[in-house]
Amino acid sequence: MPRFSESRFRVRYAETDQMGVVYYANYLVWMEIGRTDLCRESGFVYHDLEKEAGISIAVAQAECRYHASARYDDEILVRTSLERVRRRTLTFSYEIENAATGQRLAEGRTTHVAVGKDGKPKSLPDRYWRLLAAFGGE
Amino acid sequence: MPRFSESRFRVRYAETDQMGVVYYANYLVWMEIGRTDLCRESGFVYHDLEKEAGISIAVAQAECRYHASARYDDEILVRTSLERVRRRTLTFSYEIENAATGQRLAEGRTTHVAVGKDGKPKSLPDRYWRLLAAFGGE
Amino acid sequence: MPRFSESRFRVRYAETDQMGVVYYANYLVWMEIGRTDLCRESGFVYHDLEKEAGISIAVAQAECRYHASARYDDEILVRTSLERVRRRTLTFSYEIENAATGQRLAEGRTTHVAVGKDGKPKSLPDRYWRLLAAFGGE
Amino acid sequence: MPRFSESRFRVRYAETDQMGVVYYANYLVWMEIGRTDLCRESGFVYHDLEKEAGISIAVAQAECRYHASARYDDEILVRTSLERVRRRTLTFSYEIENAATGQRLAEGRTTHVAVGKDGKPKSLPDRYWRLLAAFGGE
Repeated sequence: MPRFSESRFRVRYAETDQMGVVYYANYLVWMEIGRTDLCRESGFVYHDLEKEAGISIAVAQAECRYHASARYDDEILVRTSLERVRRRTLTFSYEIENAATGQRLAEGRTTHVAVGKDGKPKSLPDRYWRLLAAFGGE
Repeated sequence: MPRFSESRFRVRYAETDQMGVVYYANYLVWMEIGRTDLCRESGFVYHDLEKEAGISIAVAQAECRYHASARYDDEILVRTSLERVRRRTLTFSYEIENAATGQRLAEGRTTHVAVGKDGKPKSLPDRYWRLLAAFGGE
Repeated sequence: MPRFSESRFRVRYAETDQMGVVYYANYLVWMEIGRTDLCRESGFVYHDLEKEAGISIAVAQAECRYHASARYDDEILVRTSLERVRRRTLTFSYEIENAATGQRLAEGRTTHVAVGKDGKPKSLPDRYWRLLAAFGGE
Repeated sequence: MPRFSESRFRVRYAETDQMGVVYYANYLVWMEIGRTDLCRESGFVYHDLEKEAGISIAVAQAECRYHASARYDDEILVRTSLERVRRRTLTFSYEIENAATGQRLAEGRTTHVAVGKDGKPKSLPDRYWRLLAAFGGE
């Protein structure tokens, strides 16, 4: 059964633009909050992966479809799931909605590559890989 | 013949993250710089479209593929072109490279919908549509 | 007795820079989160002040002293208080600390002017002014 | 004779907020652009100071007074000068104006401490210190 983590927060004034809605690049920041929370919920802290294992999860691709606008002070809900877990690549998907109304705001997907400190692809250490694979239902 | 506009700027310290490279959401900000410059080069100021015609170009979809990292103080070149120009929708595409080395950093695409002040789709006024269509080679 | 509101959130990856710590401008974003929460706690939603009363709280001055670094995923606590409440000007002050360790990270102050839609100074409507003055202990 | 460096760029859409003007924290980002350009003009690249000498210029204090609003696509001019150059501390000051109209938008000041990789204060290497002191007229 697919699992997802949930992240909730309010839209910051800084995140709006002169159109009166959230600037489009900020949805990618919200996706990153989703990834951080998913890692924590799967059993580890992303920060430790970087610090202890010396591995970063570099982004290779990102996409977002925008359905409705988010506005200042709206409560946002990000549902993050793991679409695909491999030793060296991860694909996350996201559903972003207005937490109060349930209105769908956006959906996205990001693909990542595990890289070492030299920036070259490297397999995720067993511990982290297993936790993510378990969360992803693989 | 397809045309493109060119935007050049240096990476800001604010745009880096703790991985030592440009944070991925900032590429969408750079694409917006590309759109602004393309509009200017096609013959109008995007600001006027919003102010005079009361029309905003809302983003419906965005995607980016990341090929190599950009770093603080790197000079960036964004090449922006119009892939598709319709009365109500526009598709821009982007090639982002390191201006000094020519290394390809990322490529992206955004699709937009012209909307009125009520947020509903609305056709681009003739003047703007013709300038964009001419630039896009349609 | 002076009152303050409390805001809690975790540091986003997007907020770090290549020095490995939170980029300095983001503390001003955090102060804005503090202001939003203080308004809500005092009895109104800042958004309504803008929408219903047509008044914005423009910033006239901001300052921040940085004592220690915040890092990715740290839980942050912002304590916001109202140092001075006048009909047309407000001064907020902020203490920002690491919520887990209690370590003081920064302290700041911002002064604001109430402005109408034309950008000119305007008195705060009674309802809002009283709520803020009561919160500020004046 | 006091010297200053000049930085010019256009306001990005991303930098505006729902008030229709540039969000206040972005002025600190612009000050950082000013510092980068001042270093380059004084004879070195800030990036090299970090990489070669292993020294970062951490911010200890920042302040900004806001006089008038900047808007999307405005051309901005930042004049940066060195108010004070010591072995371990630097104070920069900034004048930010609308490049087209000459209208003063903001003025600011930041104080910095040179720190080593351990985050502790450290003297600037001779080469960098001399270049900055010469630029600052000391």
